[in-house]
Amino acid sequence: MDAYPKLVERFAQISRLDHAMTFLSWDQMVVMPKNGNDSRSAAIAELASVRHARLTAPEVGDWLDSATGNQLPETARSINEMRRVWRQEACLPADLVKARVIAGSACEHGWRTQRLENDWTGFLANFREVVTLSREEARLRQAHADFDTPYSALLDLHCAGDSQALIDSVFTKLRKELPELIQQVMEHQQTAKAVDIVGEFPVQQQQQLCEKLMAVLGFDFDAGRLDESMHPFSTGGPGDQRITTRYRNHEFFEALSSTAHEVGHASYEGGLPEQSRGLPIGASRNMCIHESQSLMFEKQVFLSRSFMTFFTESIHQILPSSAGYDASAFWSSCTRVKPGYIRVEADEICYPLHVVLRYEIESALINGDIEADAIPEMWDQKMTHYLGLSTQGDFANGCLQDIHWTDGAFGYFPSYTMGAINSAQLFATVRSDFPDWQDRFARGETGFLREWLEQKIWSKGCELDSQELMVNATGHETDPSHYLTHLRDRYLKELY
Amino acid sequence: MDAYPKLVERFAQISRLDHAMTFLSWDQMVVMPKNGNDSRSAAIAELASVRHARLTAPEVGDWLDSATGNQLPETARSINEMRRVWRQEACLPADLVKARVIAGSACEHGWRTQRLENDWTGFLANFREVVTLSREEARLRQAHADFDTPYSALLDLHCAGDSQALIDSVFTKLRKELPELIQQVMEHQQTAKAVDIVGEFPVQQQQQLCEKLMAVLGFDFDAGRLDESMHPFSTGGPGDQRITTRYRNHEFFEALSSTAHEVGHASYEGGLPEQSRGLPIGASRNMCIHESQSLMFEKQVFLSRSFMTFFTESIHQILPSSAGYDASAFWSSCTRVKPGYIRVEADEICYPLHVVLRYEIESALINGDIEADAIPEMWDQKMTHYLGLSTQGDFANGCLQDIHWTDGAFGYFPSYTMGAINSAQLFATVRSDFPDWQDRFARGETGFLREWLEQKIWSKGCELDSQELMVNATGHETDPSHYLTHLRDRYLKELY
Repeated sequence: MDAYPKLVERFAQISRLDHAMTFLSWDQMVVMPKNGNDSRSAAIAELASVRHARLTAPEVGDWLDSATGNQLPETARSINEMRRVWRQEACLPADLVKARVIAGSACEHGWRTQRLENDWTGFLANFREVVTLSREEARLRQAHADFDTPYSALLDLHCAGDSQALIDSVFTKLRKELPELIQQVMEHQQTAKAVDIVGEFPVQQQQQLCEKLMAVLGFDFDAGRLDESMHPFSTGGPGDQRITTRYRNHEFFEALSSTAHEVGHASYEGGLPEQSRGLPIGASRNMCIHESQSLMFEKQVFLSRSFMTFFTESIHQILPSSAGYDASAFWSSCTRVKPGYIRVEADEICYPLHVVLRYEIESALINGDIEADAIPEMWDQKMTHYLGLSTQGDFANGCLQDIHWTDGAFGYFPSYTMGAINSAQLFATVRSDFPDWQDRFARGETGFLREWLEQKIWSKGCELDSQELMVNATGHETDPSHYLTHLRDRYLKELY
Repeated sequence: MDAYPKLVERFAQISRLDHAMTFLSWDQMVVMPKNGNDSRSAAIAELASVRHARLTAPEVGDWLDSATGNQLPETARSINEMRRVWRQEACLPADLVKARVIAGSACEHGWRTQRLENDWTGFLANFREVVTLSREEARLRQAHADFDTPYSALLDLHCAGDSQALIDSVFTKLRKELPELIQQVMEHQQTAKAVDIVGEFPVQQQQQLCEKLMAVLGFDFDAGRLDESMHPFSTGGPGDQRITTRYRNHEFFEALSSTAHEVGHASYEGGLPEQSRGLPIGASRNMCIHESQSLMFEKQVFLSRSFMTFFTESIHQILPSSAGYDASAFWSSCTRVKPGYIRVEADEICYPLHVVLRYEIESALINGDIEADAIPEMWDQKMTHYLGLSTQGDFANGCLQDIHWTDGAFGYFPSYTMGAINSAQLFATVRSDFPDWQDRFARGETGFLREWLEQKIWSKGCELDSQELMVNATGHETDPSHYLTHLRDRYLKELY
């Protein structure tokens, strides 16, 4: 008898457990009161352990072996994706999985206070254990598949299909060109009058404005919601995409940009193929593609001159205190380039250098070339080198600023910049497929873009590899030249 | 080797799965967008099935047998409670459990429309199957333990330890005395001027007022939160008690009373013994005790003249449109007695008769003395007899008003009134232990009551049976005379 239906049922079970963990984690980050953390972490760890047992039970390996025979091509692909998910999990012992969840959860929980208190020492006490367990994880993953370094084995979890060689070559080009481009753009922008948007922008109004933006971008509120959290993120499951943003009283573009960004992530998840729901073949491809979708909505749509011109009417209507500024003032304030300490506040040109820095540190850390206590000094040196800013003694604005490392998500950072590059490349094709794209954006039309993305990316799930997706949609593999052109067109020529 | 530690670990696992289901259900009822429902229900069903398998695995029965030997008394009690939980789950075949969930779900789903359309015939078509399966369930539960009737076997799920004989004797006294008391109080209240609190009370202000009330009642916002839902409820786990209320624009006492009520439930859960967290011995005792805690905060504290006098300042401050009414107007509007059709809207004197009516009908139904089609006529006769109100032809305001029977929760209703009686009895002891209780309430002090309840009830978990708890706290078993005295003191003498 064919083992494939058994695999389908098992993976459907696993997706139901994933659903539970996803929404318990959302709750933990968005609404849970602080004293609930111990029980919550224990419950999530328990589910992770049930999931691990279901996925790595001996019969799954047997089914994967026996299901390899005569299959339709799409079934063979589905089995391949199952095998990838299975191998990623089966190569780790249950004890390590559980220890990692508990240590990550404790470190993340502590970080929420330690970051505010600039407490590197307190953080380090928890973080050492996270690093130890992540190295052990990387070592085991490397032993079970063909990776050149332990770090590559972690990279595979987030950027699967995009080799370290590809990432290295892309980052080398950025490292080489961006510092000079930053100087050129800053010089160019010195000649333009700087506009500061100042005022009081009540959080409730900002929230209403974000919901308006979501509606224009095509978000379905019967299948998702917007909430507030310290660090914006998106998560969810079929029919239920949860995005968050954060608000500041004196500034509203951060909330709007984050919202547009997370709408991109949510749209990808919401557009995945229904017929393979709950199966690995029906999941999103990797984070380099995922981030290309969020940056598509944030940088290519929301930050375009044409869309911002359209949306300015809503801004004026919902935030009366913004009435003194026009679309061009908004656009120029949003496209100001200036090196800063905080990655999530960085502009399009500086951002990749924040990522290159983290990539260099985390790969050295996981490969055992440095220890965790060396991080603050490396951070300071690289920030000074790439962006001319020292972080000496300032951990809050340095190595404590990001949540990623707290629970061991090493190998994730590169996807931000690979995503930016994919996004610019995909949008170059959109521009040539829809020469009137600026007129459409100026009327608030985004449906044509959503349809294009749904057809080329979302509905494909994992039917294609990441580079096959890019070739299929744009004609060639990930290439940073589109991104560099995009930056020059926007920031030096001010074309869109 | 002793099997007890194995049992402890297994029940801790089960409590972690319960935690997951609890918070996924909270999310489903409070924040989930509607398109998320299918995946959510599937995920919760998956966890229920994992839980069932863990609890009823053959080794659990073996461990319970072999752990019965030489044990400390507290261990023996702990094992007894484990056995009770295990037996309640293990005595039902998986087919019946599944059939019950499907029939209950269909009946509840249909009821949501049928109630609005006064469609008893449509409801009956689904409900007959629910009754058949509940009778089968009751028969099996009776066969696996020592219950005098099938109904007692269902009663045990909600009112464990309070025998049907006890409930019968309590309800007989209420049936005899309450109808006359209602007449006396209505006559007495005719002489007083009726005050109607009218105005517009914005939801946001009401929410702030509810949070103020929670703070005064000792709710810890680091260990819980308040939200809004269609029907108020409370749920949660260690360090995280979630309560909900609902708001209406023209009335604010419903939101406040519900909030006080749910704070009582949440306080009990939050005060359970830490050392036996996650074990059956560390759980709340039964719903007759649970409801005594919610009614303690709702009826004995919030509805007392002294507390309401204190809290009126907050009401005036946070709801400016209430300024025209004083504490005495608030109190008299909240203590109006008038028979009505709807249980959840009933006052303290009429409420028990609604419960007695349901108890009489559901016990006869489960024990096979009547069939489901007899319900409307019995309902009409009893409502006419107890409260002077006929429900002939009016099913929506009669036997279709409650959700409980739709999914087979027979044996639950008695706990509402047993809780009211326990609450009055416990509070009679509090009054004699703290003769200055009214002065304390008038200053907004509630800590003394919380400490007393924590010591006598909350911290005991399931270490004592329900009647042992009552004897330990008040000197004797559940006795309705305290409740009747409370009603006369409040509604005829207007003492507090």
